[in-house]
Amino acid sequence: MQFPSITPPDQQAHREAVARHEQLTKPPGSLGRLEELGVWATACQGACPPHPFVRPQVVVFAGDHGIAAHGVSAYPSEVTQQMVGNFLSGGAAVNVLAAVAGASVRVVDVAVDCDPATDAGPPLVTRHKVRRGSGAIHLQDALTDAEVIQALDAGVTIADEEVDRGADLLIAGDMGIGNTTPAAVLVAALTGSEPVAVVGRGTGIDDPGWMRKTAAIRDALRRARPLVSDPLALMRTAGGADIAAMAGFLAQAAVRRTPVILDGVVVGAAAMLAEELAPGARQWWAAGHRSVEPAHTLALEHLELTPILDLGMRLGEGSGAVAALPLVQMAVRVLAEMATFADAGVAGPAGAPLPTG
Amino acid sequence: MQFPSITPPDQQAHREAVARHEQLTKPPGSLGRLEELGVWATACQGACPPHPFVRPQVVVFAGDHGIAAHGVSAYPSEVTQQMVGNFLSGGAAVNVLAAVAGASVRVVDVAVDCDPATDAGPPLVTRHKVRRGSGAIHLQDALTDAEVIQALDAGVTIADEEVDRGADLLIAGDMGIGNTTPAAVLVAALTGSEPVAVVGRGTGIDDPGWMRKTAAIRDALRRARPLVSDPLALMRTAGGADIAAMAGFLAQAAVRRTPVILDGVVVGAAAMLAEELAPGARQWWAAGHRSVEPAHTLALEHLELTPILDLGMRLGEGSGAVAALPLVQMAVRVLAEMATFADAGVAGPAGAPLPTG
Repeated sequence: MQFPSITPPDQQAHREAVARHEQLTKPPGSLGRLEELGVWATACQGACPPHPFVRPQVVVFAGDHGIAAHGVSAYPSEVTQQMVGNFLSGGAAVNVLAAVAGASVRVVDVAVDCDPATDAGPPLVTRHKVRRGSGAIHLQDALTDAEVIQALDAGVTIADEEVDRGADLLIAGDMGIGNTTPAAVLVAALTGSEPVAVVGRGTGIDDPGWMRKTAAIRDALRRARPLVSDPLALMRTAGGADIAAMAGFLAQAAVRRTPVILDGVVVGAAAMLAEELAPGARQWWAAGHRSVEPAHTLALEHLELTPILDLGMRLGEGSGAVAALPLVQMAVRVLAEMATFADAGVAGPAGAPLPTG
Repeated sequence: MQFPSITPPDQQAHREAVARHEQLTKPPGSLGRLEELGVWATACQGACPPHPFVRPQVVVFAGDHGIAAHGVSAYPSEVTQQMVGNFLSGGAAVNVLAAVAGASVRVVDVAVDCDPATDAGPPLVTRHKVRRGSGAIHLQDALTDAEVIQALDAGVTIADEEVDRGADLLIAGDMGIGNTTPAAVLVAALTGSEPVAVVGRGTGIDDPGWMRKTAAIRDALRRARPLVSDPLALMRTAGGADIAAMAGFLAQAAVRRTPVILDGVVVGAAAMLAEELAPGARQWWAAGHRSVEPAHTLALEHLELTPILDLGMRLGEGSGAVAALPLVQMAVRVLAEMATFADAGVAGPAGAPLPTG
């Protein structure tokens, strides 16, 4: 799997957006992070002033994990498949948030543990399916080498499909009972962290569950740690088909020069892998939020991304990224629509009188 | 000036919203702050499930401050009037953010230093005008006793006008060159803080300006400190007509059982006064953001409100509150629109299998 080398967002548009901010009717820098986000989005679009994003697209990557049968989650694996149905009928949190934010939601079954013959959804959901669940990573590999490539390819293809259909901003979301365990292992491996530094409560496990999860992370990490310089081997050993597909999706978004808002810890782990596979891809990403999962903070630091929101969220599905989308739209529209000092006949700071007091 | 006693948001609706969150297809608590905000909004609306806010209204209170002629701001006072025109033509930051968030913006000239005969705007803007600028508070009172009452009444009347026109969520914004100086003095007086603990860069003053501003805060605070138990006297001595009007507006919103999203330091100072005048009003307010002005953090701590956003903003105009509005709408719509476990046929955490690993 070889990604083309990533070119950065447009530096000329970046400079023009910085200069334009100085002309808008507000004190320079007074919109804080919104100014930085607007500059980033302008650079990604490649022209200043930027335009509002017209087709933000969320793709939820659903997959089960063998580890879920070993007491690391508060929920049974069946919930993954049930939630795919919930996404399709519009009842999940990300559907509601996306409706407010003006984004569309697509769900893809990458590795849900259900029978394609009897439980399959529409082709848009199932056509990229790699397998039924990924291996229990504290005991065995998550995937075969061939499945890693197949999952990455699925993510690349999905990114291409969405960009070709007109998506101008992409968000990856995760759905999979047990998926914070492989995410924590991947983050621990790539940041050189210990199990206790990455383990979190996930969907809300109790103390015995937390101990089982920490032990599972420890066992999987023992197998993954030696492979830290080989992202494909890492995905095979301690990842999952959904996570590999997200990594392909995030890397391909950068190849296609399409900005991404990142979600929480599972997407964060996939993003770290994508940055390994396609160095520089992170320039095309903004961090939507900081989740309460400890591994997410490590992932954000590793990627050198500062989250927009910090609301104690820990749901996944892309929800934290979608929650940040209106702020990204505001950031873009400020550059696109605000009056300049000249337009509005407003005196700038250079016109300040000499102090008299 | 006597406000009716404030009744809290509906506790039955609050309990129902908490219970409903447990039934929605997500792990309990996994939406973090969004869950709390949804519960708060439901209690304010008085019925569960809540409905999306259909007419959020921003009111920008414009007023000049005599202190601005004494070198405490990077901008000349004329900018206040010029910006009123910019709000009316839709070119200011808050106009753009409100368009994204689905809010309307009204600007009111409470104390702009312009001639009502020649420079007046439409009646909706000018009919509540109290005076041309407020006094230079390091040297003299900001207002007379009668003007304090007139300004508070203006704020009350504006809140009533907006609620009567159908507004179901209110946001106060500030516009006034020099207004962070009285705001800092008021916060210092009400929290027992020193000038260096409350002084900020405002629109972006340089180091000599910062020193002048700190000295002005010190001088005004010397006059204001003895009056800390008398909010009307505090407004007269160290406030301003715009700030007093905002205090009346925020208190009256609570009287009218209409929720408010608070903005930055100037609104924060007005909110502290409103809470003094109408104890319990703060239960009707959410803090939209934390500005970089140090006095704002003190005000939020005093009001025991946790900001939704922390984006390094320092513009005023209501911009930080409007930036948070989509998150409040998301919080409400989650409760209104998400599927329950029963609706969606999704297994809850009680259905988790016994751990086998």
